[in-house]
Amino acid sequence: MPGYKNLDQCTAFKKLQEKKPVSLKNVLTPARIHEYQAHAGAGLTYNYAAKAVDNDILSFLADLAREQELIEKYRCVLNGEIMNTGENRKVLHHLCRGQLGQDIVCEDKNLRHFYTQQQKRIADFSQKVHKGEMKGSTGKAFDTVVQIGIGGSDLGPRALYLALENLYVPKMNVHFISNVDPDDANAVLARINLETSLFIVVSKSGTTQETITNYHFVIDKARTQNISSFNVHKHIIAVTGQTSPMAKNSDFAASFFIDDFIGGRYSSTSAVGGAVLSLAFGSEIFDQILQGAHEADKQALNEDIRQNAALLDALIGVYERNILHYQCTAVLPYSQALSRFPAHLQQLDMESNGKSVNRQGENVAYATGPVIFGEAGTNGQHSFYQLLHQGTDIIPLQFIGFKDAQISADVQYEGSSSQVKLNANLLAQILAFALGKDDSNPNKNFAGERPSSLIYAQKLDTKTLGALLAHFENKVMFQGFLWNINSFDQEGVQLGKVLTNKILNKQTDDLCNKFMTLLDL
Amino acid sequence: MPGYKNLDQCTAFKKLQEKKPVSLKNVLTPARIHEYQAHAGAGLTYNYAAKAVDNDILSFLADLAREQELIEKYRCVLNGEIMNTGENRKVLHHLCRGQLGQDIVCEDKNLRHFYTQQQKRIADFSQKVHKGEMKGSTGKAFDTVVQIGIGGSDLGPRALYLALENLYVPKMNVHFISNVDPDDANAVLARINLETSLFIVVSKSGTTQETITNYHFVIDKARTQNISSFNVHKHIIAVTGQTSPMAKNSDFAASFFIDDFIGGRYSSTSAVGGAVLSLAFGSEIFDQILQGAHEADKQALNEDIRQNAALLDALIGVYERNILHYQCTAVLPYSQALSRFPAHLQQLDMESNGKSVNRQGENVAYATGPVIFGEAGTNGQHSFYQLLHQGTDIIPLQFIGFKDAQISADVQYEGSSSQVKLNANLLAQILAFALGKDDSNPNKNFAGERPSSLIYAQKLDTKTLGALLAHFENKVMFQGFLWNINSFDQEGVQLGKVLTNKILNKQTDDLCNKFMTLLDL
Repeated sequence: MPGYKNLDQCTAFKKLQEKKPVSLKNVLTPARIHEYQAHAGAGLTYNYAAKAVDNDILSFLADLAREQELIEKYRCVLNGEIMNTGENRKVLHHLCRGQLGQDIVCEDKNLRHFYTQQQKRIADFSQKVHKGEMKGSTGKAFDTVVQIGIGGSDLGPRALYLALENLYVPKMNVHFISNVDPDDANAVLARINLETSLFIVVSKSGTTQETITNYHFVIDKARTQNISSFNVHKHIIAVTGQTSPMAKNSDFAASFFIDDFIGGRYSSTSAVGGAVLSLAFGSEIFDQILQGAHEADKQALNEDIRQNAALLDALIGVYERNILHYQCTAVLPYSQALSRFPAHLQQLDMESNGKSVNRQGENVAYATGPVIFGEAGTNGQHSFYQLLHQGTDIIPLQFIGFKDAQISADVQYEGSSSQVKLNANLLAQILAFALGKDDSNPNKNFAGERPSSLIYAQKLDTKTLGALLAHFENKVMFQGFLWNINSFDQEGVQLGKVLTNKILNKQTDDLCNKFMTLLDL
Repeated sequence: MPGYKNLDQCTAFKKLQEKKPVSLKNVLTPARIHEYQAHAGAGLTYNYAAKAVDNDILSFLADLAREQELIEKYRCVLNGEIMNTGENRKVLHHLCRGQLGQDIVCEDKNLRHFYTQQQKRIADFSQKVHKGEMKGSTGKAFDTVVQIGIGGSDLGPRALYLALENLYVPKMNVHFISNVDPDDANAVLARINLETSLFIVVSKSGTTQETITNYHFVIDKARTQNISSFNVHKHIIAVTGQTSPMAKNSDFAASFFIDDFIGGRYSSTSAVGGAVLSLAFGSEIFDQILQGAHEADKQALNEDIRQNAALLDALIGVYERNILHYQCTAVLPYSQALSRFPAHLQQLDMESNGKSVNRQGENVAYATGPVIFGEAGTNGQHSFYQLLHQGTDIIPLQFIGFKDAQISADVQYEGSSSQVKLNANLLAQILAFALGKDDSNPNKNFAGERPSSLIYAQKLDTKTLGALLAHFENKVMFQGFLWNINSFDQEGVQLGKVLTNKILNKQTDDLCNKFMTLLDL
């Protein structure tokens, strides 16, 4: 069994603190561009030539990885040990996409079989919908799918859907309802035909306030429309935990299951992402995403940090957070298809590692998870890059790029295609951030020394996308181990829920009452 | 003429540094909820009861506002003085929405007349399009408008469009192409009918690489479609500077003008936002946005910080940034219609104030503009709020809320409507962040002391939206004056452009060449 200790108790961490930081301008050479990269699985490569590390620092980081037993802890995850200690749960999202550890049996149930069985059921169901064998209550085929979910039941699946919607012709129109704001549900309902629409209600607990409210919102709206012989319940399926109140609700046209070992923000490769993505594109597309994720999971087992992109990305991130004291990380995909991928990573990272208490329940004396933000490049260049280049704080950057566009139809203008212009911008930014430029006009002076990494592949296809998703899941997991925190619970969201219910049940005090008058509550 | 000095040279700033910070748990009382709020114009109110300030701090902040002559500097902006000193330009976005300073005449041109004339031309043009008097080249009426622009020509207009698309039935289908990624343009082009589409190419300089590339992308794609008697140039209008290369291009079906005194990120209330929003909703809707913005501009002239929301928001923000040393600010609108408003504010704030050099060209020794990020609540609650509640850094919060939803059709479930649930969540979060909760289980312990403000109004309508936009523009302007930086240029984006062109023109060195091989360039 691996041991758990705080980052600042590690010998390698103390050595890193004593080591003088390197200057990017000094170390960034042509030679290291090919040397400083690691496989991330499924053809994805992590290049860290423009990170402020050298071989000494990398060697201390390798020591740190061994000292914190990162690979061993990852094996514990894969082998089904209770790694979400606060909630006394296993952490099994890797198992949804392939077996890398031992068989995991829980209450006589082989969980790998359980997850693949749910995938199979979803595949069969999707096929029936696509073939028109499964129809709406008024006899019309379904042409629209609407995911009702929030947080992990929304951000990951939505980001993946958007990443593929132009690569494949979706088999159905796809919409998402997440917010409890009635404007969200009303806007989607105004755009669809209820008779040909299939809703997926996604909530592991079966009690998520926003999602259950929107489920009832749809039922209520359907009733008011008075469509002859329309039965809304024939239009709603569920993805939920097997023991949840939703699992006991027999009104659903079908139900697919996950369990407590799949955390919301890690659930894109479970039935949570599987249902909507299989309905949108076909289950074979979803299978390919799982394969890509599995390849990244496998790569993340490599003991050599130079061969393990997720591990290295995690270690360099901790170096930047705890030695260089940078508070934020910007995620900058140079692919419009990844427009909402930063929003998914924002949840994944900030909900996993935005913690102040270690696994032993003590406050830690160092910074943990960073603030994550980002937009697709080149859009971000025309937005917040000014601050990244010339602001008073240094923000580490995570670029993502692809050699080819998803849609091959490109146009030449002034001697280059749009895709070449896109990637020229990406590489120009890496160099500008790292090297800066001296100018006698201080307004035009660039200090440089802004570190960045580049994750790249030939093209953003299904397997690449799956690997990209898993890369960041594994990076975040390794960072949690480095900080000695539990990356798999989210107690920080509970207090707001409790107070919301007090307001709704009118169990409020004077202070709250005064605030409530501002919004006429 | 006001004087310009650094923040750390101000007497009031030194007093603030000596003042002990207040504890929110100690100061947050029912009484101050109604006392600690200020008008922002057009029915918008800024409540700062849950900010970590008291009357002493507010009095020092008022001193600081006087010492940095903030209102006087704002009057200089309104009176057309050269406030963008680096580029030797006036700053006139306020003038697009009403006259608050003296007449501004430049080269014999009254600029107020110029801006209103352009609005009038856009209104007339929009009306012709809506009435079908202006048709496409094959004789069909236009039913679709596509804005081609990036940065300020995209984020602001897009955020405003999304904020209103469910409040009004748009008169046309609306799309945006921004990214130079060919997947962006291809995806939009696949969804529209060229014969009934009108494109707006928006670039003040007329040379923005992404926008001009996408303009030619559309022309090229149109040619390959071989539609009989189709003339793509009858489908493209321009919004550009009067002296730009685009202004000299006679191929456009119509051209509307701005000038160098309207910065990109401040251009939503100029022709840049006016063309697409007037075509989308009608010019009378755009006029109402301008009225709301004008009301906020007027409110921002109030010398009393307790009556001036933009000024107070700016001052409290600087207090948090430079006395409490918080690096980020999260913007959290509890309205799905504002889903992309944080992305606009990200540009507005970070591009304006992400600077290290003061107006005299010297490096400043204090932090300037914060990192801005955010998502619509309650979605954010299920994403990154974990870190906001329990992370190791404190992040100030900017909530935005409305008493009523935009669409009145709401549904009651378990005794409350969705809108009531939405706002109960909002208020619960303010309390949870401020007060926290002690728990013997350290995982469930909330330290509190996370400051937030709330901007609220009855409903998100056109005037409210205009006021909200202007509130933040003015806040950012005041902060720039406090930091003694120029909020109106963006020299930090230039180096990337230069290096991109070097790559495209193959004027590269070994280091760049090596990077280029990664992406097959």
